[in-house]
Amino acid sequence: MLEKVIPTKIYLQESELPKSWYNINAVMKDKHAPALNPITKKPVTFEELSQILCDELAKQELNMTDEYIPIPEEVQEFYKMVRPSPLTRAYFLEKVLDTPAEIYYKFEGNNTSGSHKLNSAIAQAYYAKKQGLTSLTTETGAGQWGTALSMACAFYGLDLTVYMVKSSAEQKPFRKAIIETYGGKVIPSPSNTTKVGREILEAFPNTGGSLGCAVSEATEKALNTPNCRYVLGSVQDHVILHQSIIGLETKVALDKYGIEPDMFISCVGGGSNFGGFIAPFVKDKIEGKAKYKIIGVEPASCPSMTRGKYAYDFGDTGKITPLLKMCTLGSGFMPSTNHAGGLRYHGMNPIVSKLYHDGYIDAVAVEQTKVFEAAVMFAKSEGILPAPESSHTIREVVDQALKCKETGEKKTIVFCLTGTGFFDLAAYSAYNNNTMSDYIPTDAELQKGFDTLPKID
Amino acid sequence: MLEKVIPTKIYLQESELPKSWYNINAVMKDKHAPALNPITKKPVTFEELSQILCDELAKQELNMTDEYIPIPEEVQEFYKMVRPSPLTRAYFLEKVLDTPAEIYYKFEGNNTSGSHKLNSAIAQAYYAKKQGLTSLTTETGAGQWGTALSMACAFYGLDLTVYMVKSSAEQKPFRKAIIETYGGKVIPSPSNTTKVGREILEAFPNTGGSLGCAVSEATEKALNTPNCRYVLGSVQDHVILHQSIIGLETKVALDKYGIEPDMFISCVGGGSNFGGFIAPFVKDKIEGKAKYKIIGVEPASCPSMTRGKYAYDFGDTGKITPLLKMCTLGSGFMPSTNHAGGLRYHGMNPIVSKLYHDGYIDAVAVEQTKVFEAAVMFAKSEGILPAPESSHTIREVVDQALKCKETGEKKTIVFCLTGTGFFDLAAYSAYNNNTMSDYIPTDAELQKGFDTLPKID
Repeated sequence: MLEKVIPTKIYLQESELPKSWYNINAVMKDKHAPALNPITKKPVTFEELSQILCDELAKQELNMTDEYIPIPEEVQEFYKMVRPSPLTRAYFLEKVLDTPAEIYYKFEGNNTSGSHKLNSAIAQAYYAKKQGLTSLTTETGAGQWGTALSMACAFYGLDLTVYMVKSSAEQKPFRKAIIETYGGKVIPSPSNTTKVGREILEAFPNTGGSLGCAVSEATEKALNTPNCRYVLGSVQDHVILHQSIIGLETKVALDKYGIEPDMFISCVGGGSNFGGFIAPFVKDKIEGKAKYKIIGVEPASCPSMTRGKYAYDFGDTGKITPLLKMCTLGSGFMPSTNHAGGLRYHGMNPIVSKLYHDGYIDAVAVEQTKVFEAAVMFAKSEGILPAPESSHTIREVVDQALKCKETGEKKTIVFCLTGTGFFDLAAYSAYNNNTMSDYIPTDAELQKGFDTLPKID
Repeated sequence: MLEKVIPTKIYLQESELPKSWYNINAVMKDKHAPALNPITKKPVTFEELSQILCDELAKQELNMTDEYIPIPEEVQEFYKMVRPSPLTRAYFLEKVLDTPAEIYYKFEGNNTSGSHKLNSAIAQAYYAKKQGLTSLTTETGAGQWGTALSMACAFYGLDLTVYMVKSSAEQKPFRKAIIETYGGKVIPSPSNTTKVGREILEAFPNTGGSLGCAVSEATEKALNTPNCRYVLGSVQDHVILHQSIIGLETKVALDKYGIEPDMFISCVGGGSNFGGFIAPFVKDKIEGKAKYKIIGVEPASCPSMTRGKYAYDFGDTGKITPLLKMCTLGSGFMPSTNHAGGLRYHGMNPIVSKLYHDGYIDAVAVEQTKVFEAAVMFAKSEGILPAPESSHTIREVVDQALKCKETGEKKTIVFCLTGTGFFDLAAYSAYNNNTMSDYIPTDAELQKGFDTLPKID
């Protein structure tokens, strides 16, 4: 039955919460190309993958057939503590923009990790515990994932080592503090705790590190530690599977109130929130039944979709991880140091990449100062200080809403507000003080990244 | 009709949200003594009060008769954006404590200001705007109030000057950054922008400032600025009135599910969250109908209830504000520099003070390291990093729950979790690194504060 009065914030009842995750791979007509063993160049097997990942996660990563995958009851209980997230009508933003557009946002930042990352972190820690593992390793850039996983590991009593991109660890002492409060051990990367870290330090003694390098260190550390696995917060299909909780809740809320979106918008870095947010809306898109648009928003400074190649590439600088067919700038691409927040990974999740390549979804790139302009407008009107990542989305939403103002169209826009900016106030200060700059890589600069692509295809 | 299944998080429907605030003063059999003009020592009149406060707030401050005061529709609309706050069953904390007690918490930290302070800030900014004022001044200590008011002023397009206790401004650069992001101007106090500030600086050139001193500066500044008023985030009765939204929502949720609490617990600094949280539960207590206990929790380092005097005192160091009859340590009392977070004010709201003095509510004092121990336990089990202020409450809740474990009693505990600790990670780091210390003032030290009390009674 359709509910009549739509509240400003839609909170689902507990009985309406999803009991299964949604696996986009099952409904892809053309599946994305398989991950390859970086040495043999053959599709990775479960046996190979489970040396790095937990068994259940390796299984999920390779699952191309089951549309719904049950959420373990213990994870459902945890979700009840930190979820559902509200779907909020942005009445005040609409008013400030004076737009006929109707804007809704699914806010994933109302948990201590400050972002959607907790949705997957708790699932991954659960599977690790169930497998009898005692410790995990991971990497973190902006720090959202490291915080989320540290919370999840504290909950299940697992040891955690977080390789945190060195420049980020230095700029964000409080990110480090919160990870440590939850018991995680933070190691600025590159470090001398791994072979790959020592090699990078020798070649580039003053480097601030990169996500690709931190991935290499975390992977190496996991491989050399008993009862330990590497877990990661984006890029992989199983992460998108867990993040589908975002889209599934959104769909229940939209259907309950008969809201029919014209577009879904969210930011893309490795693709985790975006893939999860759009998950239940992809099938209709593939089958040509949907009239809505799906738009991914990326930073102009790290444009893996709008300006990347669709090719096999390494996930890490050290070239240890499986090769993925994806939109990529090359594992040697280094994002500009003036770039704030996350969304700085060279590649893109294979599902999202394939959907983009096949024309089912769109992508746009936005510039940093315009992103923060939208962020501050949103903060003042909607009362939430958005994360820089989420603010990319807001920029595009604002632009779409302003287009509606010009044309008079009353479009319905639904976006995912992935997180809060509590740990990004140095970037906000830079914006406030007019010391923030933009950066768009030249074609020549991008070419240097492309030159690091392996020759597979 | 009683709902059967109690969800982990109770979110009220929009139609269930309170449309009026609750005024405790109206149901007090013995009213608290009136505020006095600091010069004439006679009860302050509306005319006098409205020179400092907005008209409507001055009226509310003096309202001793209306039990319910309507919430303006515009404020209700804003509340719909940032509220309701959830009432959450602390299943996981109960499990960790292995207690038969049932624990619920009303979480007020899920907004960008990070605390309950926004409930009153938006109301105060609304009334200021309606009165045609163009700017406001205030003080902030830990920064929660300054952030909340800056958000509220941004929403209504009002200029704001925040006198921030200097030591706090230096320790919390990101608090300053978020206030500035919302457009507020932050002045570390004491400053040379006011007479009282210059005097204090001359007498104590190296002082880190105090809340009492910042109050004096903000008040002086407001008095000397056209179309400007001073607003404050605690201690005053009208602030407690606005904060009654917390208690009212809690009551609707408890009644809806037939939950019958044995005790209500929250932290007390100036009394704003505590007074608002307990507001609708006081009447039954006064009339002897309630079986529940109401407990305020204060820091052992600033024990205005458990070790203070019940007497008339100044609200500020500069002795500009009206005299209030309250539990106080004396306006000359300076909290220890090792004290983290808020709850550092020398006095206590007159309603709360009177209720305590008359024996309707209880108070306990807790020590800092034990507070952070409870905070980390809560963060790990319930997935929310609590503010230091709120963690005082958690300490007492944990102690009560452990008592239940000893006695086997299945008590129902409801507490107010006022805010998040995102801006207090320096304090968490100190706790993690074992460099945090406790401090209990000696009787002789307290006497120095009492010596600054005016002779009125």
